[in-house]
Amino acid sequence: MSLSDAADVDRAAIQRTTAQLLAAVNDSDVEGCAAVWAVNAVLMPPHHPAVSGQPAITQYFRGLFSRTAFRFTFTSSGIRLAGDSAFECVTYTATIRPNGGAPPIDDIGKGLHVYERQQDGSWKLTLDIWNSDRAIPS
Amino acid sequence: MSLSDAADVDRAAIQRTTAQLLAAVNDSDVEGCAAVWAVNAVLMPPHHPAVSGQPAITQYFRGLFSRTAFRFTFTSSGIRLAGDSAFECVTYTATIRPNGGAPPIDDIGKGLHVYERQQDGSWKLTLDIWNSDRAIPS
Repeated sequence: MSLSDAADVDRAAIQRTTAQLLAAVNDSDVEGCAAVWAVNAVLMPPHHPAVSGQPAITQYFRGLFSRTAFRFTFTSSGIRLAGDSAFECVTYTATIRPNGGAPPIDDIGKGLHVYERQQDGSWKLTLDIWNSDRAIPS
Repeated sequence: MSLSDAADVDRAAIQRTTAQLLAAVNDSDVEGCAAVWAVNAVLMPPHHPAVSGQPAITQYFRGLFSRTAFRFTFTSSGIRLAGDSAFECVTYTATIRPNGGAPPIDDIGKGLHVYERQQDGSWKLTLDIWNSDRAIPS
């Protein structure tokens, strides 16, 4: 396999992991979310302290989905490979629907995923940070 | 030079670039800020659309410093090297002081810097995203 073929395989594997995360978030699927993270990953949500380690990340999503349903779309993605690491810049749109009937909130923003190649050849998320483009209401 | 020596040299160069950015932000020094960015870098500030390219980033800092003074401290830093790329996870505290006398705002948060080795051997910022740990006031 040539170097460029290998890079295409890596990109495709990363895209599958991103798609798996997106589907799991939109399905409020805690186990599906947990599956994409490396054991020592760090989730860096806006307006919340960092969440360190796959068990804490799983717990974070469980709490989140008990309060809120999401409809995320990644509107662009750029992947850069760097050895056994990879960076993906994304832009997103999202509808955030609080359980209990409060009005949904539309959001638009951007994020950065860092992936690492695992011993079994799969790619898992090791860092995830994002923020909104919208001004904070004054 | 051994591989680990080379890694130490890279880490030290990245730390110098981070320190240069921090000093420039705290001095409201637009040219100092501009100097740390790669030409095609992307700045991803919270509650603002992404800012693409060194000229737009320079303009962004010029506008920002005309309205606001900052006192940032990086309270932790973890650097991981990946070939000619590197990423640095930071935590920060900040005091944001609007010009014109409005009360200062204290912030605490986290961020992710991506660096790339340049042709001249220096390391420049290519991506910078951060967000606050503080809940949005309801």
